[in-house]
Amino acid sequence: MNSGPGITPVPLTVPDFGAAFPGPFPTSPHAVTADRRLRRWAAERNLPVPADELRTLCGITSQGIARALPTADLDSLLLAAELFLWLVAFDDTHGEVTAAVDPAALAGHIDELTGVLAGNAPTSPPGPFTTALRDLLDRIRDRTTPSQYLTLTGHLHGNLLGLLWEAHHLTDPSRVSLHTYCTMRPLTVFARTLTAITPITLSYELPDRQGTSDLVDRVETAVARLAGWVNDLASYPREASRSSAPPLSLPTLLRHERHLQLPEAFRAAARMCEEQAVLVRALIDELSATGSSPLTRHAQALKHIVHAFIWHIHHDRYTTPVT
Amino acid sequence: MNSGPGITPVPLTVPDFGAAFPGPFPTSPHAVTADRRLRRWAAERNLPVPADELRTLCGITSQGIARALPTADLDSLLLAAELFLWLVAFDDTHGEVTAAVDPAALAGHIDELTGVLAGNAPTSPPGPFTTALRDLLDRIRDRTTPSQYLTLTGHLHGNLLGLLWEAHHLTDPSRVSLHTYCTMRPLTVFARTLTAITPITLSYELPDRQGTSDLVDRVETAVARLAGWVNDLASYPREASRSSAPPLSLPTLLRHERHLQLPEAFRAAARMCEEQAVLVRALIDELSATGSSPLTRHAQALKHIVHAFIWHIHHDRYTTPVT
Repeated sequence: MNSGPGITPVPLTVPDFGAAFPGPFPTSPHAVTADRRLRRWAAERNLPVPADELRTLCGITSQGIARALPTADLDSLLLAAELFLWLVAFDDTHGEVTAAVDPAALAGHIDELTGVLAGNAPTSPPGPFTTALRDLLDRIRDRTTPSQYLTLTGHLHGNLLGLLWEAHHLTDPSRVSLHTYCTMRPLTVFARTLTAITPITLSYELPDRQGTSDLVDRVETAVARLAGWVNDLASYPREASRSSAPPLSLPTLLRHERHLQLPEAFRAAARMCEEQAVLVRALIDELSATGSSPLTRHAQALKHIVHAFIWHIHHDRYTTPVT
Repeated sequence: MNSGPGITPVPLTVPDFGAAFPGPFPTSPHAVTADRRLRRWAAERNLPVPADELRTLCGITSQGIARALPTADLDSLLLAAELFLWLVAFDDTHGEVTAAVDPAALAGHIDELTGVLAGNAPTSPPGPFTTALRDLLDRIRDRTTPSQYLTLTGHLHGNLLGLLWEAHHLTDPSRVSLHTYCTMRPLTVFARTLTAITPITLSYELPDRQGTSDLVDRVETAVARLAGWVNDLASYPREASRSSAPPLSLPTLLRHERHLQLPEAFRAAARMCEEQAVLVRALIDELSATGSSPLTRHAQALKHIVHAFIWHIHHDRYTTPVT
């Protein structure tokens, strides 16, 4: 919990997920090795992240992905961890506070990444995030079906759109309605990008989906919403310490739209998380009950992804004051 | 050609596409009916576009789509025309000059549309563009395979990202390199959204594609690049008259990066268009020569889409002074 200059200490309310997602959460036997190799990967990619932040980020990512993919082999675990680390590090470096000050600068990075997604030849010299994404996509393409690749890169495009959208609202979250926030938050939490890489790393193939009425799509959307809200609760103190504006985050919007004090807004947000977790659990069970092998596997995988987001609330990244 | 206040008359150089795409270009027997029905659709949707602009826009769209899809049945032709009109009208209304002044306002529209693409329940009351897109997607979903729908909505997401990106650079195009522009321009010209709806309207299904090395992807990218450049040449005078900054457009970037006078930049842009047309034609022929029935049909369809973009250079929308 942080109490930076001008920031009121926040009484973090932790939701109780015990009913929908009882622990203990399984983790990967490769967690320690993955952590070491993820740090090495990040160092080799020269990602422009301060060493202490990168260490924390590698720690939370490797441990989180070890819970999201407890049964994946080491190489698959690393691939997912690297992609997720890439997303969070890019967001930390070029999104969020930095982008709020100068959205055009973020737009300038996004065009480089759009070029990577389009398979264009690199500019000279490409930045470290650009090079790292290109390498990641090359490895991912080697092991995906066309539909899996299209789904994954679609969500990456969505993430870029989400970050650029967010940059326009960070300095004044009061302009964003709760409804709009619920639409856009899944794009900035990266959970669907994680759900998209999961079948790739665990070697199963989902049936094609017909838009947003599809059960898989509905479960994934519900998971992403929960992940975003859980992260909002976890990251509020950290984000509040980094900007003079209140965080663009569920408690802020509840406070504004429902005229609550911050502690009440936190309790309301925690309740929403708990209710969303119950919904997610019901949808996961429905998916599992379809009896189709890939859908049952996906239901199990989504449960593990929820574990990872629940687990991350208590990580040092969010509970240690930002210095 | 326009010579508004402070704008030097532009010596529009028209490329010669006769070698790669000789005319005459076939057009649909439904062109006149489609035009009438497109106007009615636009009026019923209450799109916030001034009547005279809407009339011109309906005219160029129905005639353009009649050339892009000369063999489509009337309903399919209309579906494609309505989607394309929607894109251009949204861009005219909330993108371009309007967005350059206030990118955050565009971000606010884009979050509504992202909600539509995500299948979320509407806000109350949704704007006319939001309602129109929801209706279009409902109709499109009814007649697509999952892969076709995913491809189309993927390109729509890309269009939204492109418009938001563009908004950050319209006031100072000198910050955009030619390389970056070539990456981003396909997202703002909507040609790939048109190529994505083509198999839907003509009832054939493309094989799944494996990313950007795929021949279909390479041809479509080449077509989109050509379409963007051709539109840049056509729309330069119109765009120059609407802003004090030079248009974010191929001639501007060539002028800046190669230290050319504007007439030279136009000639260079026209040459690039001609060379790109030769490349596109070679790729279309390669696609056609694969012998696969859907690929041959797609090759033919892409040729017609190129026809439409070549044809549109001479339309009144771009050759009549903006008043």
